[in-house]
Amino acid sequence: MDSVTLAHLLAREGYELRLVAVDYGQRHVKELEYAKLCADRLGADFDVADLRSVGRMLGGSALTDDIAVPHGHYAASNMAVTVVPNRNAIMLSVAYGVAVAEDATVVAAAVHAGDHYVYPDCRPEFIEAFEAMQRKAVEGFGDPSLGLYAPFVHKTKAEIVEVGASLGVPYADTWSCYEGGEVHCGLCGTCTERKEAFELAGVPDPTVYGG
Amino acid sequence: MDSVTLAHLLAREGYELRLVAVDYGQRHVKELEYAKLCADRLGADFDVADLRSVGRMLGGSALTDDIAVPHGHYAASNMAVTVVPNRNAIMLSVAYGVAVAEDATVVAAAVHAGDHYVYPDCRPEFIEAFEAMQRKAVEGFGDPSLGLYAPFVHKTKAEIVEVGASLGVPYADTWSCYEGGEVHCGLCGTCTERKEAFELAGVPDPTVYGG
Repeated sequence: MDSVTLAHLLAREGYELRLVAVDYGQRHVKELEYAKLCADRLGADFDVADLRSVGRMLGGSALTDDIAVPHGHYAASNMAVTVVPNRNAIMLSVAYGVAVAEDATVVAAAVHAGDHYVYPDCRPEFIEAFEAMQRKAVEGFGDPSLGLYAPFVHKTKAEIVEVGASLGVPYADTWSCYEGGEVHCGLCGTCTERKEAFELAGVPDPTVYGG
Repeated sequence: MDSVTLAHLLAREGYELRLVAVDYGQRHVKELEYAKLCADRLGADFDVADLRSVGRMLGGSALTDDIAVPHGHYAASNMAVTVVPNRNAIMLSVAYGVAVAEDATVVAAAVHAGDHYVYPDCRPEFIEAFEAMQRKAVEGFGDPSLGLYAPFVHKTKAEIVEVGASLGVPYADTWSCYEGGEVHCGLCGTCTERKEAFELAGVPDPTVYGG
C-alpha cells in the first residue's frame, strides 16, 4: 500500500511513471500482480526485475525461505527474520540504472517511518547516503538533476493511508500480507500494521482478512 | 583480469573467498566461465547472479545490445556506449547483500584507475560514497566491521598485471574481450587496454588475439 500510494501521488503531481516491481523470490510474489494493476490504472510503464537468483543468495529471511513469518506487531526481536539483507540498496540501484537509461528526473521510493526501527535501509540517513552515492555513480550520465524522492520517509503508515484516501487509492487492490495466501492472513507483522494504519487514519479498511 | 588478479591477491592474503559473477546479458558472457575457472583454482565458493532482466531494462549499451563494440583506445567519446548505467552500484549492492547473509568481513571489487575517465562508478569518490551508504544500509546486521576493499582503485591496469605476475595468475585463463568470440578480438577497447597493460608491465602476454 505504501508503494501504490506513492505511485498515485506522483501521478497526481503530473509525473510520467515507470513502475519497477521486483521478484526476489518473496513468498508474497502476489504483490507483483497488484503492482501491475496499479500500473494499468495509472497508465504507467511496468517492469518486473527478476532477482530470484539474488534472493536465493540472500537466504535466511522469512520472506523468502521456509522460515515461519512472525505474527503480531513489528519489533526488532521477532521481525528481524523478515530482513532481506540490503534489499533496498539492491532495488534502488536497479531503479537508478533504469532511470539513467530512460533520462528520468526522479527515482521514488515509499520507505516510511514505521519501518525505521527494524529496517536500517528505510531510515532517512540511508536515503541521504544512497542519493549521495548515486550522484557519484552516474556522474555525467542521464539527467544531471536526477534525485531520490522519498516523501514518506518521515510519515507513519497511518499518514500514508490518509494521503492515499485523499487521492482515492483503491486499497482493496493492494497487497501487503507476507504469507501471500488467498486473502490477507490478518496475523503477520505487515497485516497487523495494515489494519492498525486504517484504524489510526479513520479510513474504512476494504481488506478481506483471514484472521 | 582485474577481478581474477584481485581474487588471487585475497587468497594469498588468507581470505576465504566467495566469488559472485554477474550475468547482466553481456555479449561477453564467456567471462563467467573464466570466473568459474578462477573459483575452482582457488577453492572458492562461486555464484552467478542472474541479472539479465535488469540488463534488458538498462538497454542502450554496446555491452548488452546490438550496438557495435567500439574499437581502439578508451576515450569518453567512443567508449561511453559501453557504459551500463549504474552497473557497479547494482553489482556491489548484491555483493553486500550476500556478504551480510554470510557474515563476511569484506566485499572486494577490482575497480581501477584506468577506468576512471569513462566510468564514474570506478572512481575513488564513488567507492567512498558506496561504502558510506552501505554502512547505513545494513547497520545492525552482518559483521559490524564489514567494509569495501578496492586495492586497485589507484592502480593502472599495467600495475595490476605486475601484481598478478608476482602472484602467478594464469592470465591465459582470464577473459577481457567485449566481443565474446572464440578468441580475444584484439581490437575492442578492453583488448587494446589488455595488450598495452602487458607491454607496459613488461610481462609476456599469453593471450591469443584474433586481430
